[in-house]
Amino acid sequence: MAVQSVESSTTSPAASPASTSPTPSFGPAVALSCRECGERFDLGPIFACTACFGPLEIAYELPTGDPEGLRRRIEAGPNNIWRYAPLLPVPADVADTPSLNPGFTKLVKADNLARELGVTGELHIKDDSGNPTHSFKDRVVAIAVQAARTFGFTTLSCSSTGNLAGAVGAAAARAGFRSCVFIPHDLEAGKVVMAAVYGGDLVGIEGTYDDVNRFCSELIGDPAGEGWGFVNVNLRPYYGEGSKTLAYEICEQLGWRLPDQIVIPIASGSQLTKIDKGLKELIQLGLVEDRPYKIFGAQAEGCSPVSAAFKAGHDVVRPQKPNTIAKSLAIGNPADGPYVLDIARRTGGAVEDVTDEQVVDAIKLLARTEGIFAETAGGVTVGVTKKLIEDGLLDPALTTVVLNTGDGLKTLDAVAPTTGPSATIRPTLDSFREAGLV
Amino acid sequence: MAVQSVESSTTSPAASPASTSPTPSFGPAVALSCRECGERFDLGPIFACTACFGPLEIAYELPTGDPEGLRRRIEAGPNNIWRYAPLLPVPADVADTPSLNPGFTKLVKADNLARELGVTGELHIKDDSGNPTHSFKDRVVAIAVQAARTFGFTTLSCSSTGNLAGAVGAAAARAGFRSCVFIPHDLEAGKVVMAAVYGGDLVGIEGTYDDVNRFCSELIGDPAGEGWGFVNVNLRPYYGEGSKTLAYEICEQLGWRLPDQIVIPIASGSQLTKIDKGLKELIQLGLVEDRPYKIFGAQAEGCSPVSAAFKAGHDVVRPQKPNTIAKSLAIGNPADGPYVLDIARRTGGAVEDVTDEQVVDAIKLLARTEGIFAETAGGVTVGVTKKLIEDGLLDPALTTVVLNTGDGLKTLDAVAPTTGPSATIRPTLDSFREAGLV
Repeated sequence: MAVQSVESSTTSPAASPASTSPTPSFGPAVALSCRECGERFDLGPIFACTACFGPLEIAYELPTGDPEGLRRRIEAGPNNIWRYAPLLPVPADVADTPSLNPGFTKLVKADNLARELGVTGELHIKDDSGNPTHSFKDRVVAIAVQAARTFGFTTLSCSSTGNLAGAVGAAAARAGFRSCVFIPHDLEAGKVVMAAVYGGDLVGIEGTYDDVNRFCSELIGDPAGEGWGFVNVNLRPYYGEGSKTLAYEICEQLGWRLPDQIVIPIASGSQLTKIDKGLKELIQLGLVEDRPYKIFGAQAEGCSPVSAAFKAGHDVVRPQKPNTIAKSLAIGNPADGPYVLDIARRTGGAVEDVTDEQVVDAIKLLARTEGIFAETAGGVTVGVTKKLIEDGLLDPALTTVVLNTGDGLKTLDAVAPTTGPSATIRPTLDSFREAGLV
Repeated sequence: MAVQSVESSTTSPAASPASTSPTPSFGPAVALSCRECGERFDLGPIFACTACFGPLEIAYELPTGDPEGLRRRIEAGPNNIWRYAPLLPVPADVADTPSLNPGFTKLVKADNLARELGVTGELHIKDDSGNPTHSFKDRVVAIAVQAARTFGFTTLSCSSTGNLAGAVGAAAARAGFRSCVFIPHDLEAGKVVMAAVYGGDLVGIEGTYDDVNRFCSELIGDPAGEGWGFVNVNLRPYYGEGSKTLAYEICEQLGWRLPDQIVIPIASGSQLTKIDKGLKELIQLGLVEDRPYKIFGAQAEGCSPVSAAFKAGHDVVRPQKPNTIAKSLAIGNPADGPYVLDIARRTGGAVEDVTDEQVVDAIKLLARTEGIFAETAGGVTVGVTKKLIEDGLLDPALTTVVLNTGDGLKTLDAVAPTTGPSATIRPTLDSFREAGLV
């Protein structure tokens, strides 16, 4: 819980083994804090609590007291996530270090889509396909790269089903790290090319994504993995904070205003929890008015463990075996599932799922109305938004933001079977007239 | 010639049939001017001079006299091409109309690439893969859409080999136009999906791209094409001006400074001539210091009619039959070839070409050093830059900007055969050690 972390860092620093003053390398971050038991640790390449094995997250001493000054400082910053350096675990001069500089992607006012969905309030798409490797992963990787630099790692790594591998490869290339990333050996050829083109080592592992993950955990404890930063394992607390920037950008792009409702895709659930953390920080800092907002989670029916738990009124998430075209969301046992359930319930939101057919329809709906070609994850959020409105769970009269976290070019197969020419003609006017398009 | 057009518009307005005062719909644009004979025409959906059949281009009355005020106005504008509305054929309130809002893409300081190429000065990549449909085409289409709106067209169209079709489809969807675009019937499936997903009509034509082009010209004169704006035919003078924004952005992002050298890909040659036009306007307006710059053109060897003419010392371009992986540059009879030759010679630049193998090597070099995955056209410019340095034609001690006009995701096939995993292993530490990567 972000606000608690921030508060406890100033009120009870002696209660934990962590240092109490910020270090320049991590800006306003002061410690790692266990999300389960609250135990605090020095900032380091660790990700699990030694007391209770709970996940660790970053605790801050944020720059309170001068919201106007902070707002001006942010607005004068670069057009990327580093404008929010005062709120991230990065050094103040982070914008001067080599990085892909992701973020500050477009917030698109989607008036055409609003009309189709019967939305009378403001509807916006936060379109993260504009990032350097065309997914939100560039945000989280950029923060992990900074931490890797501080910890003296020389190799960047990850387990991935494709997109993250490309994001890590690209970021490592720019930042001057070696990279060695691990994928299941039987990925589609296109994803392999995207992951390998940046010139780092790409290793195919004979097994499933779970096998790849398990292997990476072993490698961290082995001499062969010495000096390696795994962005989504031992750098995960830093990595996760990158998603906070989505919350900051949405509010700044709305004119320093909270949206009433946000629809966020759920894979591990980390992104949703960090967006909530970011929104709470903005309220705490006085950068936006303190008023309620609702957070909605979106899954594909073929991998809907959190949606199922939400609907059943459970606090825990029962793992599922994924079977959906929305592969970037296909995590059957989402680590942050319980936190997502808590946030959706606390804010008055919901978690919903849509079928693969509805995902495809939603991709086409967004493309046809707004000229945005989304990844399947974007089809999930747009499809769920439609369903939530139809079910009366999302208020069409309020200001709503829907996330598109990736690019349709990466999941062409999803729409290919049902997307093609209206007609094929001979190059003559007669043949064109016969086609019946005019 | 931009400066001539601007000058003549204020010194000899009576010499032409065009109106002499700007109309609000076209901002500072006052007339169409024949690039061959100088004859002037009212702003309209026409593209060829009735006197000599030369191509028409936009003539302006630009806002001279207060460079500081203009600079502040631009810097206070939106983070897209509409910040330059005072210099484009668009209304002053253009940013309020529905558009994909392309532009203001990253200018990446490419220090790693500079080291590899032996560049001791500044080397920058202008990375237009960050545009909404991931190529520079979004810039030119956005201007054409504004003109289509003013002329009362209700359908947007084009002839295309794929990328432009997608850019038109997306822009039309957002801006509320019907679209009907024409492609050769045998395009790759991926390109067809990208062109069709935005929901407009996509028509495959049994024939080559030349047949498609010829058909579109016929359609313009036919009742079936009434109310249709073809972005690259009857809207071409407006469309072409979108490329000027590349020049504006490069100079603004360099701190209102001209680069010493720019390397630009050549398809029709229009982009190169408009970037030159944009640079001259900035000098004329006092937004940058008036000093020399060199413009270099880049082609693939398999379609190098302009490079061949440059090397042979010819003023005219002999058409070629294209055979290269750089398909977005594969125009064998480039309309603006002679103007490109003139600009390269006048500025002290050059036109050079590279083999397909060098294109692939350059794509990988850029990815490995800067984390930028470029389309084949980007491989052409980076490859030509390397060759120009080796040949002593491009000065490595100066400030150089190299254009990447598209995204590698669109031309995966170019690198796929030579890009793959370093190793495939079993999920064990022993198997990893045997692979010899640590």
